[in-house]
Amino acid sequence: MPIRILQAGICETDLQILRGYMGFVGIPGHEFVGIAEAGRYAGQRVVGEINCSCGRCTTCRAGRRTHCPDRTVLGILGRDGAFAERIVLPEVNLHRIPETVSTEAAVFVEPLAAACRIVEQVHVRRGDRVVVLGDGRLGLISALVLAREGADVRLVGKHESKLARAAGLGVSGVLAADVRPDHRADLVVDCTGSPSGLAAALEWVRPLGTVVLKTTVAAGHSLSLAPVVIDEVRVLGSRCGPFPAAIALLSERAIDVEALVDARFPLADGVAAFARAQTAGTFKVLLKIAD
Amino acid sequence: MPIRILQAGICETDLQILRGYMGFVGIPGHEFVGIAEAGRYAGQRVVGEINCSCGRCTTCRAGRRTHCPDRTVLGILGRDGAFAERIVLPEVNLHRIPETVSTEAAVFVEPLAAACRIVEQVHVRRGDRVVVLGDGRLGLISALVLAREGADVRLVGKHESKLARAAGLGVSGVLAADVRPDHRADLVVDCTGSPSGLAAALEWVRPLGTVVLKTTVAAGHSLSLAPVVIDEVRVLGSRCGPFPAAIALLSERAIDVEALVDARFPLADGVAAFARAQTAGTFKVLLKIAD
Repeated sequence: MPIRILQAGICETDLQILRGYMGFVGIPGHEFVGIAEAGRYAGQRVVGEINCSCGRCTTCRAGRRTHCPDRTVLGILGRDGAFAERIVLPEVNLHRIPETVSTEAAVFVEPLAAACRIVEQVHVRRGDRVVVLGDGRLGLISALVLAREGADVRLVGKHESKLARAAGLGVSGVLAADVRPDHRADLVVDCTGSPSGLAAALEWVRPLGTVVLKTTVAAGHSLSLAPVVIDEVRVLGSRCGPFPAAIALLSERAIDVEALVDARFPLADGVAAFARAQTAGTFKVLLKIAD
Repeated sequence: MPIRILQAGICETDLQILRGYMGFVGIPGHEFVGIAEAGRYAGQRVVGEINCSCGRCTTCRAGRRTHCPDRTVLGILGRDGAFAERIVLPEVNLHRIPETVSTEAAVFVEPLAAACRIVEQVHVRRGDRVVVLGDGRLGLISALVLAREGADVRLVGKHESKLARAAGLGVSGVLAADVRPDHRADLVVDCTGSPSGLAAALEWVRPLGTVVLKTTVAAGHSLSLAPVVIDEVRVLGSRCGPFPAAIALLSERAIDVEALVDARFPLADGVAAFARAQTAGTFKVLLKIAD
């Protein structure tokens, strides 16, 4: 289904791709809002799930379509992405954006869904101690989603300016240098984007607790796994999440994602936009591609 | 509660301790059968859970006694172990051995419980594809326990002689060199005792599948965790398990553990016993301490 792109967001994965992650060659970009040009949603604003599966293999038929071994992934694997005037996605991947959600907010559906994936995988209870490592885009959004579940969330970061902004959104944060890990968290979410994220998470999590890994970096890291075994920690890889849950959160104005936008660039200034996205203290840079 | 030791088994952890694991200084040994010399079980054959907890801290009160931060662990951490004439353990740790179970079989309660821990943590279904990595003691026992759940278990090892013995016990095995990992296993259990076990397991496990880590080695290993995240793998550390389940398996003669005993030494020949336990192809070496 052809889609005319309105706006797209630059994400940490795009910056990793720029450094060689996934060996991707092509047009990046997987956070977008556009207008469907044909099909069921013709003329309407849509966002799109990024995994395009074959629908026929054992994995797809077992209901694990986002893990289809023959999948392409928008702007990440074998499929040109959304930093462009137009893209093509299967209709089954599309979700209509309700009138109550602005186009700018809707760019956050994909990362917000990735944060919602955490609470799909882990039963987070009211009062659970949660530590989110990493004060970047995904860390902050994850902290907001987890706090909404009633968890006692602490964001551990490295940037005073980002932690101050997080505080403005109601997320309690602390500089990593100012705090000692205490092996008391029920859940630790690694959004550091660093290969050392798991080692840090293992210092925060309690015995029999859970670590959710959101960081996808190609680099290896030397790590002793003995603490995972001795403390019987559960480590969960976590990737893409449920779009309907994310759209519902935006529609309820549960999370003020627009406060995270730092800069907007036209597509022609894409290189400058990427440079800005890599600047310390930046949360989200948008590409405004069409009105 | 004082216990007079009858027999004790040498385990992979004992060999790791010999190489410096846990920095333990003292008498090793945590697989044993003995006669309780006082208390509720006075005069009866008992085995003992190895974690001795304080019972008062937050972790204990939350029901996670085996993870008490102030615990001692028999022959592993702060408490002399069972390669001795006598040990002391809290009465709450003891389990009586029924008449139907031989003393030699009862030495296997502790490692068998560790294997039973896997099916306590993971819901293994009939027909699930399971790969057990490592054809040592724990790998074989784990394969036997998992096969009993109706899983389709394959043992991947490095020793033809061990795989042949496993086959004799009904476990289908294959040499690692003769097979290509296929990303199709629902569950992979790492009993390699090698820091590279997780990397190997990630090549066998399917997307959204589970890896259980049994290997406790102090050494670090360089590893990219991106496959854990991309495939949303669940990695579970797994340590000590339920003694009653293991005693029940032995009482039902569900698993022929006595076939795993390769040699028996008196305590005075402990050094020779350790040497034998490290010999290629050896499953279990027992110390016969008293009758």
